[in-house]
Amino acid sequence: GVARYRAEVIGTGEILFFFNDPATTEIYTLSLHDALPIYLPRHVCVSCDLIHYQNPKVVAGCIPEMDGKILLCKRAIEPRYGLWTLPAGFMENDETTAQAAAREALEEANARVTILSLYTMFSLPHIDQVYIMYRGKLENTDFGPGSESLEVKLYEEKDIPWESLAFPVITETLRLYYRESAAGHFSTHTGDIWKTSRAAKDYQLKILDKDKLDKEKTRNR
Amino acid sequence: GVARYRAEVIGTGEILFFFNDPATTEIYTLSLHDALPIYLPRHVCVSCDLIHYQNPKVVAGCIPEMDGKILLCKRAIEPRYGLWTLPAGFMENDETTAQAAAREALEEANARVTILSLYTMFSLPHIDQVYIMYRGKLENTDFGPGSESLEVKLYEEKDIPWESLAFPVITETLRLYYRESAAGHFSTHTGDIWKTSRAAKDYQLKILDKDKLDKEKTRNR
Repeated sequence: GVARYRAEVIGTGEILFFFNDPATTEIYTLSLHDALPIYLPRHVCVSCDLIHYQNPKVVAGCIPEMDGKILLCKRAIEPRYGLWTLPAGFMENDETTAQAAAREALEEANARVTILSLYTMFSLPHIDQVYIMYRGKLENTDFGPGSESLEVKLYEEKDIPWESLAFPVITETLRLYYRESAAGHFSTHTGDIWKTSRAAKDYQLKILDKDKLDKEKTRNR
Repeated sequence: GVARYRAEVIGTGEILFFFNDPATTEIYTLSLHDALPIYLPRHVCVSCDLIHYQNPKVVAGCIPEMDGKILLCKRAIEPRYGLWTLPAGFMENDETTAQAAAREALEEANARVTILSLYTMFSLPHIDQVYIMYRGKLENTDFGPGSESLEVKLYEEKDIPWESLAFPVITETLRLYYRESAAGHFSTHTGDIWKTSRAAKDYQLKILDKDKLDKEKTRNR
């Protein structure tokens, strides 16, 4: 049979499930560990103790490369309408991260991309997203704006619109990319980006493999 | 104000939202691209065209290392009760992937781990999960089973219970790990794992950076 529950939308899309008696459902703060004070607020049914977990989403994308240039898309949607970004979007069920990255390049830029290797993975805990960005080979020049893009264009490094990039995670991915591209050696970089205010340039960056980056810098001198 | 929707649970937890008139809500198969036949089934409201996206979950974990040994946990929960695994679990909102990996080590093994670097990232499209596994430094020997573990133990390579590992993604992560540990050089590996039947050993593996792996093998000879 089909079970029917009521759901209530709280604020911006947070969903609280009523499992039995709506009047007795609360948001609990659970202790996750007996010895240490780790507390995360979670939605719990007081009748059956079932936890409705809320989990971050994966955004998958790529840097489409061709002849030393990369493909950027000018956003036709909010947020950051009119600013430039790499093709990327929410990974969906029944696909891999690499397939999602290729699909987004096709949807946003009509671009056929072969995914090469993982380039950056950044956690964005303030918006509950994990950005997974690959390097990709742009297979041909038969690209153009999808419905979510105003314009799609191949850029050389000297022409990258640094002041008009849509998101810090794109800026930091491209900074790492051009730091390494001169040496022709790309490794994988991971870290976290926190927005500290709504201002576009107001954020903090932590690179997990900073030592490795510094070593590469020394080696490439 | 608070909007109220009805939700219906279909099968094993798939949720279909009724946005306006329940009688007119259907599951649509949308074309995502004008030119190419890309179709994904999605839940869509026929009244307002809002798509209820369903997205994979991130599982974050680590290989806790100490003096050439690694920490494994014997599962006290289904699936794979009684089999051995690396500490890992669903990433939650308001945390980074590295924080989630450290939290899971604490919850499952009471283990204090410092996250070192990303080791493997595998997509498991048949269960809509992305496994993100780090290398981690086990800070002390004051560990022990959490509520989801029967036993927690430091293993040398020669004693790893290969036949009693819980999941293919754990087996493949440890295979890569011991392939590289002799040379003392660890890079990041990404790929996909598909289960081809319910049998534990019945799965397919694709490593995206296979060329890099082969190059390392040659170099390390």
